[in-house]
Amino acid sequence: MHFRSDNRTPDQLRPVSIIPDYISTAEGSCLIEVGNTRVICTASIEESVPSFLRNSGKGWLTSEYAMLPRATLTRTPREVSKGRASGRTHEIQRLIGRSLRAVTDLTKLGERTLFVDCDVIQADGGTRTASITGAFVAVGLAVQKLTEAGTLSISPLRDYVAATSVGIVDGAVLLDLAYEEDSRAEVDMNIVMTGSRKMVEIQGTAEQHPFDDEQLAKMMSLAKAGIEQLIVKQKAALGTTVLSQ
Amino acid sequence: MHFRSDNRTPDQLRPVSIIPDYISTAEGSCLIEVGNTRVICTASIEESVPSFLRNSGKGWLTSEYAMLPRATLTRTPREVSKGRASGRTHEIQRLIGRSLRAVTDLTKLGERTLFVDCDVIQADGGTRTASITGAFVAVGLAVQKLTEAGTLSISPLRDYVAATSVGIVDGAVLLDLAYEEDSRAEVDMNIVMTGSRKMVEIQGTAEQHPFDDEQLAKMMSLAKAGIEQLIVKQKAALGTTVLSQ
Amino acid sequence: MHFRSDNRTPDQLRPVSIIPDYISTAEGSCLIEVGNTRVICTASIEESVPSFLRNSGKGWLTSEYAMLPRATLTRTPREVSKGRASGRTHEIQRLIGRSLRAVTDLTKLGERTLFVDCDVIQADGGTRTASITGAFVAVGLAVQKLTEAGTLSISPLRDYVAATSVGIVDGAVLLDLAYEEDSRAEVDMNIVMTGSRKMVEIQGTAEQHPFDDEQLAKMMSLAKAGIEQLIVKQKAALGTTVLSQ
Amino acid sequence: MHFRSDNRTPDQLRPVSIIPDYISTAEGSCLIEVGNTRVICTASIEESVPSFLRNSGKGWLTSEYAMLPRATLTRTPREVSKGRASGRTHEIQRLIGRSLRAVTDLTKLGERTLFVDCDVIQADGGTRTASITGAFVAVGLAVQKLTEAGTLSISPLRDYVAATSVGIVDGAVLLDLAYEEDSRAEVDMNIVMTGSRKMVEIQGTAEQHPFDDEQLAKMMSLAKAGIEQLIVKQKAALGTTVLSQ
Amino acid sequence: MHFRSDNRTPDQLRPVSIIPDYISTAEGSCLIEVGNTRVICTASIEESVPSFLRNSGKGWLTSEYAMLPRATLTRTPREVSKGRASGRTHEIQRLIGRSLRAVTDLTKLGERTLFVDCDVIQADGGTRTASITGAFVAVGLAVQKLTEAGTLSISPLRDYVAATSVGIVDGAVLLDLAYEEDSRAEVDMNIVMTGSRKMVEIQGTAEQHPFDDEQLAKMMSLAKAGIEQLIVKQKAALGTTVLSQ
Amino acid sequence: MHFRSDNRTPDQLRPVSIIPDYISTAEGSCLIEVGNTRVICTASIEESVPSFLRNSGKGWLTSEYAMLPRATLTRTPREVSKGRASGRTHEIQRLIGRSLRAVTDLTKLGERTLFVDCDVIQADGGTRTASITGAFVAVGLAVQKLTEAGTLSISPLRDYVAATSVGIVDGAVLLDLAYEEDSRAEVDMNIVMTGSRKMVEIQGTAEQHPFDDEQLAKMMSLAKAGIEQLIVKQKAALGTTVLSQ
Repeated sequence: MHFRSDNRTPDQLRPVSIIPDYISTAEGSCLIEVGNTRVICTASIEESVPSFLRNSGKGWLTSEYAMLPRATLTRTPREVSKGRASGRTHEIQRLIGRSLRAVTDLTKLGERTLFVDCDVIQADGGTRTASITGAFVAVGLAVQKLTEAGTLSISPLRDYVAATSVGIVDGAVLLDLAYEEDSRAEVDMNIVMTGSRKMVEIQGTAEQHPFDDEQLAKMMSLAKAGIEQLIVKQKAALGTTVLSQ
Repeated sequence: MHFRSDNRTPDQLRPVSIIPDYISTAEGSCLIEVGNTRVICTASIEESVPSFLRNSGKGWLTSEYAMLPRATLTRTPREVSKGRASGRTHEIQRLIGRSLRAVTDLTKLGERTLFVDCDVIQADGGTRTASITGAFVAVGLAVQKLTEAGTLSISPLRDYVAATSVGIVDGAVLLDLAYEEDSRAEVDMNIVMTGSRKMVEIQGTAEQHPFDDEQLAKMMSLAKAGIEQLIVKQKAALGTTVLSQ
Repeated sequence: MHFRSDNRTPDQLRPVSIIPDYISTAEGSCLIEVGNTRVICTASIEESVPSFLRNSGKGWLTSEYAMLPRATLTRTPREVSKGRASGRTHEIQRLIGRSLRAVTDLTKLGERTLFVDCDVIQADGGTRTASITGAFVAVGLAVQKLTEAGTLSISPLRDYVAATSVGIVDGAVLLDLAYEEDSRAEVDMNIVMTGSRKMVEIQGTAEQHPFDDEQLAKMMSLAKAGIEQLIVKQKAALGTTVLSQ
Repeated sequence: MHFRSDNRTPDQLRPVSIIPDYISTAEGSCLIEVGNTRVICTASIEESVPSFLRNSGKGWLTSEYAMLPRATLTRTPREVSKGRASGRTHEIQRLIGRSLRAVTDLTKLGERTLFVDCDVIQADGGTRTASITGAFVAVGLAVQKLTEAGTLSISPLRDYVAATSVGIVDGAVLLDLAYEEDSRAEVDMNIVMTGSRKMVEIQGTAEQHPFDDEQLAKMMSLAKAGIEQLIVKQKAALGTTVLSQ
Repeated sequence: MHFRSDNRTPDQLRPVSIIPDYISTAEGSCLIEVGNTRVICTASIEESVPSFLRNSGKGWLTSEYAMLPRATLTRTPREVSKGRASGRTHEIQRLIGRSLRAVTDLTKLGERTLFVDCDVIQADGGTRTASITGAFVAVGLAVQKLTEAGTLSISPLRDYVAATSVGIVDGAVLLDLAYEEDSRAEVDMNIVMTGSRKMVEIQGTAEQHPFDDEQLAKMMSLAKAGIEQLIVKQKAALGTTVLSQ
Repeated sequence: MHFRSDNRTPDQLRPVSIIPDYISTAEGSCLIEVGNTRVICTASIEESVPSFLRNSGKGWLTSEYAMLPRATLTRTPREVSKGRASGRTHEIQRLIGRSLRAVTDLTKLGERTLFVDCDVIQADGGTRTASITGAFVAVGLAVQKLTEAGTLSISPLRDYVAATSVGIVDGAVLLDLAYEEDSRAEVDMNIVMTGSRKMVEIQGTAEQHPFDDEQLAKMMSLAKAGIEQLIVKQKAALGTTVLSQ
């Protein structure tokens, strides 16, 4: 049995809390907390689409991600002061967008864009997976509001989607890495999965210790169990279903 | 008697709430709410100074300001996507920095930089003045922690400082403008004042209707009364005094 | 009695000279000299407006400000070499634009943009206030030319506008600070006032010594007297009135 | 049996050719061709390391990736004309760097940086995986030259590394997708594997059709067989072994 | 008799090779090698023109130039990492564009843009002149393809155009400087000439030793003889004529 | 005989005026007027050199060039608003720097940088050549001041240098093109020449009509005669010689 700094078992998620409607100016929003990681997620609807979709009848969903400078233990300079988002930021926001599009029927959205913003206000590992899990709730709340208002005749959401990380630390496979664990992991893997247990994204990286098939299977198994618990939290935060029949 | 959309009297502040220690990763922080305007303020200490102060024995205090994209009623694109902070952002962060330096003895700080970040998570007018009021609390909390830890032998803070707006709307002088009032004001003025009722900044602007001496006097009077109430809130949030002697 | 480096009394402006029509390529232009500060001001008319005014029947007036690299005693790198205008530049050009718009009836301008450029060729303090005073002359000359040509049926200018600085140096309130005085001032204030003695902008800043009501009143009084003299100079440079009746 | 546009079987790689020493100015280089995808890979050695490794005794390996504008069927504007590398470029060059570092003993490199450049001169899908496969050859050739010259006393390479793509197209699992296949794939996965059959990276993405465990297993199996063939090609191009004993 | 490092006589070109159709994705392309200098040239046709030519019935021809980072003996950072093309790059790509436009009848092109890209993959002096010589071949091949396809009814090319360098090294006038000669030349001159021996561009520069009329005449004479040989190579690479009658 | 819009003969310069010491803040400066083209030139001395010259005992001379937005008949946007200097600006400032370095003994300058700024306040063709002619005067005045002050023990200037343009307009060879002539010239050539009639730069460009040897000779001859007259003007503005000996 592997001991973790917060006494979790290897297959245990950190405490998860989702506060819906956290930002009153947005169509949908939440504050998601996964352990000490806290992310404000908002969903905005815009009545236009990127040019490659104009007159297609289809909508789009895109995402942006950022961290407040003092989300981290030492202050991280703002990206605007360098004039551009970092490669890491681009990677994460593309991941969030793809993950949500995988469960969204863009045709049912009509020629609109769902703009998802994930802003990390406190960071302790797993900010991208917390962003995906929270972003789904923000989108779900926006969809509820837009269907109630008659803007959408039917929900464009086909399934739930949530994400977590797994990794190998000191040879042990662990679920939901906190920052301290992540920073010394041999393998780091992010998994995005739907409510029907299908995979949307697998991103596994070994910086110095490549991994074998058995380790991969073990990581997949822990991740799936974790994501199922996250989807239960999402359903509780949303109250009623947000999926199209 | 002028009726305001939220039924305030002309000389009435919006409800103010300050939650100290809102971000656990920062030396000092708070969430300040002034009506529907909400700002996360953090204070960070760095053991270095800008080059113009090296070997001077003096410290520095600087500030950065930003808004989450969905702080506003319609989504505002991130400044990083344009590659630079706007003129408005530069103006505001320079104002916040000057306001706090006016009550800080930079020699007592030693060769360190206090880095103040103000991030607006929800905006309804008065974000720059709320940022100043909240930033003082974040700095005060950081100073408490650093003097307790022995990093600072004495507080560098000489006085409290807080800020509010006044303006002329439909000919009436009003305190603490909400966004809807600000957007149609004939005159907009931001006042920064210390605990000993001295002025640090006056920025009064008339877009189309220049103002006379009497109106100026009326605006100054309302602002002073408002700032005195804000400083009472700051003291409550800080618990104990943060001033030197 | 306070002695100043150039033997001025505390309430004395530096010598002011305005050369109209200094740049033959522009609709309106002047070279304004206030002591050793020299600024080329030009006014350009463009037959378009920013998108937020399209089809509104109203015009716009905007401004840009820059300094030649060797306007200063040691060479200042060009802003283009950093890829962006500094925060200080943005602040100043927004101030110039607001000041002129406060005396301009944008409806009488029609859907046109008045573009004002202020380029400092030699700097000795007060460049932003000299820019405003000179810019009004450049705009006035452009308006004369455009009304004579029939492009404008009536002048859009409602009043004169000019600006100067006041400050507190070694405890004394002084008018029209030269660079050497400005750099060691406890309080620095810029005032923009109209021909009918109404205020358009007040920007007072205390870096380390906040100021009280009595000092504020003294500064306002000196500034008003100074601006009245500047408007006399503007009228002389313009020859005939440029205001609409 | 699924028919592919170039008559390959589902588990068949495109023709692969690796021309070593293609660029005479570089320490190591090759031109790799995988079908119609052609990439120039160079490896450069620099006698310095990023600041976070200074005085650590360890070296670094980093990578940059770009495409010539006319590598694609219609001209793609250069990234320099937008002032920044795209998110896609950042993602790819980070992937190439991580993949090579996973088989490199940075301590044996000493305080040097191996700089790997992958420039696509003709693109037909799989440019990132061809880049990884070719980059290993360029690095291997540079290592041969540097050990012969005595700059390195021992090779820092622990294992071979190569990469390919797999995907699901029209429900069929296919190896080594050409552009036309990739653009309509339901699932796209890039796998990076070592000579000892361990995984360095798995990046699997489903834009609209999430995948299940069985499909994942099938993709992994095809990819592994393909990478083994690529490593045979690498060994032939390198002539002699480039691994440390 | 002056001895050169590669035993050439002063009036001798380096070996020249032009491989047509080097990049299969482009309308026209070649790999030109002049000694150790190697450049990939592509010509792309786009069915649009810059706004200043819209509805003029005329086309445009423009060019971009870049070097792979390891084209040089030590690695040169990519321009995208600085966010902009250097002054040198701008100078060269404007030169290439002007040179080709001088022999192109833009009216015969119709409202289309010929986009010429020159990417140096290995550099040993004379990259800009090799680019011009190769670019003409790429454009010629594209024109052949477009006239065969009926897109163009007649070739817009009026004449051949090619370029070389001459210079004064240790007092001797030399043709076609390699990098080592160029870097210590007293005078460096690039000449662009047409098939009918008329000059399109002369760019002669003396960094420290200004030159007299006699030296100028000698340089012009060598350059002309060299360019005539280059045009013979172009004709061979193109096979059939690409000029309009 | 060709008639020009201002009644000049083909071989006649426009009126030239040079006002020395125009900017009092700079070590050396002048306002040069060539017809309606007016340029402020300043020379600044900095006690440092670029890194490639550190500890070489040699100095450096560099130049920057810009135009005020309203130097032109219609307003030209500032380059800072695009974030970068244009290719044209880079070309011109490199030309000015090279031209002055060709007559400067950088060893006699010591490890200092002469920084030359040329700012066009009114443009009517020939701004780059007027800049070179004026810049030499600004540098000469700075050298006089620095040798008088003992900073330099001897002038680093070896010779005078000045520049003009020639061109072919409607088939006629003309000296010193005004904007209207330049914009419709078939050939445009800038020549930089020293006091001893040696050439520093020749930049001849034909946009659509390549030129032959006879035309080249005619252009060279007119340019030389013009530059001799410009050097007479430089000597008058400088008063005493600024060359070493």
